[in-house]
Amino acid sequence: MQIHPTHHHPHTPIVDKYRRIRHQSEVLCETLLKEDYNLQAMPEVSPPKWHLAHTTWFFEAMLLKEFAPSHTPFNKIYETLFNSYYLNIGIPFPRERRGQLSRPTIAEVFEYRRTVDEQVLNLLEKNSSVKCEPLLERLELGLNHEQQHQELLLTDIKYNFSVNPLQPVYCESNTVNLTSSADKKLTWIDHPAGIGHVGGSSDNSFCFDNELPRHRVFLQNYSLADRPVNNGEFLAFIQDGGYQRADLWLSDGWQKITQNNWRAPLYWNYVEGHWQIYTLHGTKAINPAEPVCHISYYEADAYARWAGARLPTEAEWENAAASQKVEGHFLCDGVLHPRAPCPDMTGLRQMFGDVWEWTSSAYAPYPGFVISTGAVGEYNGKFMCNQMVLRGGSCVSEREHIRSSYRNFFYPSDRWQFSGLRLARSIT
Amino acid sequence: MQIHPTHHHPHTPIVDKYRRIRHQSEVLCETLLKEDYNLQAMPEVSPPKWHLAHTTWFFEAMLLKEFAPSHTPFNKIYETLFNSYYLNIGIPFPRERRGQLSRPTIAEVFEYRRTVDEQVLNLLEKNSSVKCEPLLERLELGLNHEQQHQELLLTDIKYNFSVNPLQPVYCESNTVNLTSSADKKLTWIDHPAGIGHVGGSSDNSFCFDNELPRHRVFLQNYSLADRPVNNGEFLAFIQDGGYQRADLWLSDGWQKITQNNWRAPLYWNYVEGHWQIYTLHGTKAINPAEPVCHISYYEADAYARWAGARLPTEAEWENAAASQKVEGHFLCDGVLHPRAPCPDMTGLRQMFGDVWEWTSSAYAPYPGFVISTGAVGEYNGKFMCNQMVLRGGSCVSEREHIRSSYRNFFYPSDRWQFSGLRLARSIT
Amino acid sequence: MQIHPTHHHPHTPIVDKYRRIRHQSEVLCETLLKEDYNLQAMPEVSPPKWHLAHTTWFFEAMLLKEFAPSHTPFNKIYETLFNSYYLNIGIPFPRERRGQLSRPTIAEVFEYRRTVDEQVLNLLEKNSSVKCEPLLERLELGLNHEQQHQELLLTDIKYNFSVNPLQPVYCESNTVNLTSSADKKLTWIDHPAGIGHVGGSSDNSFCFDNELPRHRVFLQNYSLADRPVNNGEFLAFIQDGGYQRADLWLSDGWQKITQNNWRAPLYWNYVEGHWQIYTLHGTKAINPAEPVCHISYYEADAYARWAGARLPTEAEWENAAASQKVEGHFLCDGVLHPRAPCPDMTGLRQMFGDVWEWTSSAYAPYPGFVISTGAVGEYNGKFMCNQMVLRGGSCVSEREHIRSSYRNFFYPSDRWQFSGLRLARSIT
Amino acid sequence: MQIHPTHHHPHTPIVDKYRRIRHQSEVLCETLLKEDYNLQAMPEVSPPKWHLAHTTWFFEAMLLKEFAPSHTPFNKIYETLFNSYYLNIGIPFPRERRGQLSRPTIAEVFEYRRTVDEQVLNLLEKNSSVKCEPLLERLELGLNHEQQHQELLLTDIKYNFSVNPLQPVYCESNTVNLTSSADKKLTWIDHPAGIGHVGGSSDNSFCFDNELPRHRVFLQNYSLADRPVNNGEFLAFIQDGGYQRADLWLSDGWQKITQNNWRAPLYWNYVEGHWQIYTLHGTKAINPAEPVCHISYYEADAYARWAGARLPTEAEWENAAASQKVEGHFLCDGVLHPRAPCPDMTGLRQMFGDVWEWTSSAYAPYPGFVISTGAVGEYNGKFMCNQMVLRGGSCVSEREHIRSSYRNFFYPSDRWQFSGLRLARSIT
Repeated sequence: MQIHPTHHHPHTPIVDKYRRIRHQSEVLCETLLKEDYNLQAMPEVSPPKWHLAHTTWFFEAMLLKEFAPSHTPFNKIYETLFNSYYLNIGIPFPRERRGQLSRPTIAEVFEYRRTVDEQVLNLLEKNSSVKCEPLLERLELGLNHEQQHQELLLTDIKYNFSVNPLQPVYCESNTVNLTSSADKKLTWIDHPAGIGHVGGSSDNSFCFDNELPRHRVFLQNYSLADRPVNNGEFLAFIQDGGYQRADLWLSDGWQKITQNNWRAPLYWNYVEGHWQIYTLHGTKAINPAEPVCHISYYEADAYARWAGARLPTEAEWENAAASQKVEGHFLCDGVLHPRAPCPDMTGLRQMFGDVWEWTSSAYAPYPGFVISTGAVGEYNGKFMCNQMVLRGGSCVSEREHIRSSYRNFFYPSDRWQFSGLRLARSIT
Repeated sequence: MQIHPTHHHPHTPIVDKYRRIRHQSEVLCETLLKEDYNLQAMPEVSPPKWHLAHTTWFFEAMLLKEFAPSHTPFNKIYETLFNSYYLNIGIPFPRERRGQLSRPTIAEVFEYRRTVDEQVLNLLEKNSSVKCEPLLERLELGLNHEQQHQELLLTDIKYNFSVNPLQPVYCESNTVNLTSSADKKLTWIDHPAGIGHVGGSSDNSFCFDNELPRHRVFLQNYSLADRPVNNGEFLAFIQDGGYQRADLWLSDGWQKITQNNWRAPLYWNYVEGHWQIYTLHGTKAINPAEPVCHISYYEADAYARWAGARLPTEAEWENAAASQKVEGHFLCDGVLHPRAPCPDMTGLRQMFGDVWEWTSSAYAPYPGFVISTGAVGEYNGKFMCNQMVLRGGSCVSEREHIRSSYRNFFYPSDRWQFSGLRLARSIT
Repeated sequence: MQIHPTHHHPHTPIVDKYRRIRHQSEVLCETLLKEDYNLQAMPEVSPPKWHLAHTTWFFEAMLLKEFAPSHTPFNKIYETLFNSYYLNIGIPFPRERRGQLSRPTIAEVFEYRRTVDEQVLNLLEKNSSVKCEPLLERLELGLNHEQQHQELLLTDIKYNFSVNPLQPVYCESNTVNLTSSADKKLTWIDHPAGIGHVGGSSDNSFCFDNELPRHRVFLQNYSLADRPVNNGEFLAFIQDGGYQRADLWLSDGWQKITQNNWRAPLYWNYVEGHWQIYTLHGTKAINPAEPVCHISYYEADAYARWAGARLPTEAEWENAAASQKVEGHFLCDGVLHPRAPCPDMTGLRQMFGDVWEWTSSAYAPYPGFVISTGAVGEYNGKFMCNQMVLRGGSCVSEREHIRSSYRNFFYPSDRWQFSGLRLARSIT
Repeated sequence: MQIHPTHHHPHTPIVDKYRRIRHQSEVLCETLLKEDYNLQAMPEVSPPKWHLAHTTWFFEAMLLKEFAPSHTPFNKIYETLFNSYYLNIGIPFPRERRGQLSRPTIAEVFEYRRTVDEQVLNLLEKNSSVKCEPLLERLELGLNHEQQHQELLLTDIKYNFSVNPLQPVYCESNTVNLTSSADKKLTWIDHPAGIGHVGGSSDNSFCFDNELPRHRVFLQNYSLADRPVNNGEFLAFIQDGGYQRADLWLSDGWQKITQNNWRAPLYWNYVEGHWQIYTLHGTKAINPAEPVCHISYYEADAYARWAGARLPTEAEWENAAASQKVEGHFLCDGVLHPRAPCPDMTGLRQMFGDVWEWTSSAYAPYPGFVISTGAVGEYNGKFMCNQMVLRGGSCVSEREHIRSSYRNFFYPSDRWQFSGLRLARSIT
């Protein structure tokens, strides 16, 4: 498929950027059939139609309602139907029942997108002479929000398709198996103790509120693996009985894998003596050199313990990543699957793209974190409990959306995201 | 909408009948949008697409596989996907996840129907000279099965639509409010004690295995109401605090309404001082003279107790109905909603059509009941526990599908069927 | 242990009977340790202390409050704590939390019993000259209620003990293994079609409201097995894969055994190649000739289907039993375990005592059944849904408590009662 | 009641210490009735009898089995019954069913204690000449373990008693209402940014593995409240609609209080216009000056947000506490309830004792944390996920058991511990 090459326009004016990012959501749906738009195979995922509508709702509820006083809602009921979790705005339609809404139709949702886009662009035009900072900030937030949902759209459709015995294919690919099937043994890169910095930079570029304020941390001596753990290594863990040894697991993790009978990462299937994995391109043989993907925090943690290592903290990860360029395998490559690293490179590899890397840090406010007032304050802050931070973006993230201070977060049992791990060690 | 007038062809040869009934399923889907075909708003209902496929699967699995030895399956995986509950055939795809299957597409399901229809008709042609009784019996079963799913298709889509705040309309109607809004007070019709008969007749007409064998029962003196309880009467029960008085309810029923906070029949909504009901034509004001509908067995039983009466047994109902013609408001009328009875009629009214009538009889085998061997034996017999019998058909049943010995059955807490009640009394 | 020989005093005046039955409840607790009095290992069972208190509460709430107007309650809070399910009296303390009440103490509960007994006996004395029929009827009900709880006390303590890996013993026994370990093949006893009678007799002896009114039924030709199914026969069903063959099971039953991984009756354990069963006397080897016990309705039904037979209806059972004397192995024998039948007897054996026999009849009101007004109306009537009737009493029932019209009822998945089965067949 | 004054013997030799601490567990049970020993009113609490047995099991499984090679177990089955969660040792008896074990009896558990004590003391005597460090370390761990269970014994019995409408009293008290009912407004104490230290000290005193290794952290400027939030302040939060305002709550917290209908701290009851609280001495009026207690992390966090503040991190708390003496209201005072602070004191008050203080830190391994090998490695490490750290000890902790580096941890929804909060602020 042809994914929009968003990374070629770093200096696009705001209107073009708006059009480009909004268009991208629709491009991602181009290979879907009408029947696919309303799938919701578990409460945590949302139907593609809902993603298309909700990202539009965000601009209507957070931007038009606030900055265009004469705005009349497209449909009063959409305020409830496509509200995700903003209790300041009202009681959202229950998340686990999003797939039960055959109406509005797909066409109506696209019409909703058209109408809101027009209204947003009109508003921007009106405000183009007097540059309205709060409006532009909110617009930027809306666009970053849409990019997050573009990744979710792909992770959700992957999950939704995977439960169907017919194993539908999101898009065909010739490239997915081209990556090397071997990589060198992982090596360790040391980082000396000292004061480091964590958080979004103070320049003009966008970051989420949860990346602020930038602040100092003290880091002990530590070492990071040069690349994520790969399938071959994870297979060794499985073959060593890793899923059967309680001593390797957190207590809550052991309970989870026991109750759900987890014996391998999500999308792995053992068929006639061979491990296969389900991808957005259909089922394929496992590639030992590719980063292991679709594991929960519990599995990442257990693997690390088995390997005599641990997960990095998010501060450790960020300090190592800060000096790196944001390069790697992203959505724009169109591969939609993590790829084996380049064996010739030295130093830290694949810090960005391919797989999100679980850190050992619980998602929590930074010292001095301030929650915004109003509904927008619910964006990030109210989830700062019970979840773990992941870093670095994935093969289905937009490259321009990712930075070294970027904090993703999921519950430790979640594994339908493109989540993997990188090992760390304390140096004593 | 135009519902096929199936009742005008009592002597249709089998091929025509096959075509007509198979076609009817598709006619019922004509007002649906593509988005509606895969809805499943609770585990008990199935998506329209699934109904279309499963009824076809029935002919493939039960007829072609058995009577056409060289038959090759349309798609091996469909055997699992569209198996409802026949464990002799394999492990069905989980019922509560039918709405998670975006594939096969709607077009593919229609193609499946076309292909199987062709194969069935070919098989019939081949066997037309030598009349194969078992084949014709199985065909008859498949057609009756399809008619059952036509009713389910409508009850399921009604439920699926009802949970959407946009309140979609299945089809517009000008007739639904034309029925009288008043009826005379109900009267009682006595039946003397004695030996009666229960069960399907021994002539050549079709009946299900659960209606057999016809047998004798002893009936005490009893009296039946001349018509079902209507909305006006049920409203009086609500207004008298019927849903708040534990003494009126079965223990399991009280637990059910308390846990679910039921305070009125399904689809009733109290909006700004008025009761409204959701119908397949959208929301309308309540009509006091229409039979109350969409109540659970528990509600039927509690109402009867409040009214100083009881529900009839199925034997009482059948003995009273046996002398009646199968006339009433059925699917072919195209009203798709229970109608007020004709106030001028005397004697038993509305025994057939309009609403299924809960009886006080648990669904159980008749004395001498024999379960068929093979998968077809799972059709009825294995459900003979924990469910209650309903009688008489409804406004969404095919007239030709109903007879006085017909036994429908649902769990006592189910209320998404067109289920109502008729009062009975013991005469002592 | 020494169980009170209640059957030797058929003509005891009412005061003696009251004392005797009330005393029996305490006798049954004599082998318990203080630690055992408050056990509740699942929601369906109650602690011994609760049984002792609740049976006393019954006399206080149903008799003293009504017939002794100046009565002051022993403790206001007991009205709630020891109310089982009478919503007319108030909201009972939740059933599943009865084991969470360490107070009142055991001594306080015995003091409660003493006090209420004194008050009841005083009341009886006052009314001895003018015979007050309603009072005596209520007293009779209270005593029958207490006898029901005596059986529950034993079935509950058996369950409570069984979950403890230390496998406590309720009482030692030398007699339990003395019964024959072999019996002849079962034979069939035919019953001709015709009108029979069902229900409690019209003479002065006590029966519950659910046994009334006595009424006529029509019975088809049927045949009953001469004795209950025994362990040896049930073992053959297990060894034939009975628990693995879906075609033998009711749909709800198959779901139940699959979810709970049932593979044998409750209390059966396969230890080192041998089947053992847990009894009130501890664990012992299985005796093939003893009636199979502690099976659910689903297991009884599946066994019958496997054996090419069915369960009898309660009408069939009662008509066969009506001519029999109420003789068999009851609580008074002190064996507390079903015993093998006498191989020398002919005709129907073990209709009474040993094991309750599941019938295929759902628990429902008899034609003309009238619910009493007030709280006492909740005794039986509100449970007439979703449960199945059992007949004949068991080895832990009082002989004087049982009669041919006696209806016991439990949910089809319940199996902690002493429940077994007798086969029936339709004769065609 | 007379609590053992453990704090008067700081230099007790090890044998005396062993005897003293083991004795203390039994002292705490002195006011219990036999009926109370086996209560378990929710899965998270354990019966007193189980605590007495499990702490003994710990010495048997962790010390005797390892250091006394010829040791024969007191009872093989106890290894399973009284194992809490050590999967290296076997599958423990399910936690939520501990209250279902009437056997072993109380007397048998005390006999178990006697026997193991004798064996431990014999072993100590044997090793007294050659000082065996690993043995002494394990002994120290076992004693600290026992002290933890002494606190749990009291928090669990409080919960168990509270669900009983009879509201049992653990012990009478004259002192509980003597504390002042007014305190001055809280003040703030600033702490400058810089490098601080976290973790157990390197001297010879005991600390748990989760307090190690001691390490450097960077702290921003912050300010701590001089005392915990008190009842009067928390009441203002309630009266301001704190439990109804979604914007004050973490997302998971809002879900929790909504589902459980929490409207006040645990043990608060609004009776006839007044707030009362249930204590180990029975119900009493609320004292506005006492620290608020029995709140979940969610409630602590919501209160802090409402108050324009936040919770401290554990590093902030520890750095402030490090300079304080471990003084306050502990178990040895015998009050068993948090007390109002002394209004005359200045500076940080009540850092130790009274109530555990929720911190905003998720329970996680310190940098360089090493898990011990064997079963003892399961003591702390495997719980380092999904839980939050509490600091400072409570009115039911042993004073000698608490230190500034001590880390307690519970799930954010837990509130049956004596848990309160102290406010913090970032200084910017």
